[in-house]
Amino acid sequence: MSRQLEPIARMVAELSKLPSIGQKSAQRLAYHIIGMPLDDVRELASALYQGRKAIRYCNVCGNYAIDELCEICADTGRKNGQICVVRDPRDVAAIERMRDYGGVYHVLHGTLSPMEGVGPDDIRIRELLARLSDGAVKEVILATNPDIEGEATASYIARLVKPMGVLVTRIAHGVPVGSDLEYADEITLAKAMEGRRQM
Amino acid sequence: MSRQLEPIARMVAELSKLPSIGQKSAQRLAYHIIGMPLDDVRELASALYQGRKAIRYCNVCGNYAIDELCEICADTGRKNGQICVVRDPRDVAAIERMRDYGGVYHVLHGTLSPMEGVGPDDIRIRELLARLSDGAVKEVILATNPDIEGEATASYIARLVKPMGVLVTRIAHGVPVGSDLEYADEITLAKAMEGRRQM
Repeated sequence: MSRQLEPIARMVAELSKLPSIGQKSAQRLAYHIIGMPLDDVRELASALYQGRKAIRYCNVCGNYAIDELCEICADTGRKNGQICVVRDPRDVAAIERMRDYGGVYHVLHGTLSPMEGVGPDDIRIRELLARLSDGAVKEVILATNPDIEGEATASYIARLVKPMGVLVTRIAHGVPVGSDLEYADEITLAKAMEGRRQM
Repeated sequence: MSRQLEPIARMVAELSKLPSIGQKSAQRLAYHIIGMPLDDVRELASALYQGRKAIRYCNVCGNYAIDELCEICADTGRKNGQICVVRDPRDVAAIERMRDYGGVYHVLHGTLSPMEGVGPDDIRIRELLARLSDGAVKEVILATNPDIEGEATASYIARLVKPMGVLVTRIAHGVPVGSDLEYADEITLAKAMEGRRQM
């Protein structure tokens, strides 16, 4: 037996496909899982598969959702006149953690990146413009990442939205430039939101 | 929505139970998994659950097995006169990787640890003695970890086995003292096996 048992080898192969889990880590995790009670492994596997299966995108804003609308779009207490535009659903989660924003969101699912061939039609810009057409939206807050692609995306959207008579703002650079919005702390995010300026 | 969606929260909770995966890593993995095609997540979940379910312990040596006997005990080419005693099935895998040992194994599933209340009846020492009763085994190689508990366990077993007229050897301290046998490289392990001495 110079090789690993097939079920263990398969576990290691699948685990090592995950980000930042190398061969050694995958092996350690696999052995740990083999030592776990079967019921606990069932819980883990089901959380991953059923969890993935349960998640879809909100028909309106593109955020993670269980039903057609995400919990934020379905919440009648949120201000529909204010739309915060972000790259990923995880950015929505980051902004929600500061418990300070009462408007709704629009998730682009990407940022403009000519280098990687991502153009305006590849991210949800058209869907954003559609949401602005009935005049109910008073402000679009651009909360894309404070990096080159995020800034370029914000400028692009600002140029399209301003002629529609909607106030366009950009979150302040309280967020350290070059970092990832997902990992910003609540206070930094709140400061960035407060200090937003018209574009 | 100050809280996470339940399926995502459950994913994060289950992932963060794994060793060396903290809250932030679990969150990052969960978001990665939500972004994966459903079929790939099914493969991952099934590898974990079906893999865990497929693995049992060998009736003879206690190693990981698919059937009643592990691949090593079922292999008629292995020398049954030599038993290498290790703590964990993963130590069997480590020794097998050096492709140099032709005998069989005995997995204790633990080491003596008075501090943690692990006594001789809590690890598979009785099963080892039973395997020695018919006189076919000529040598017991003690390959428990070169740490305090591993040495104590080796001494304890040596005291029981020597009166039975079986040669008892201990792998040499080619393995760096205080380290974990699982992570030793093949050459160090081969040296340790070569330099074993009678106890």
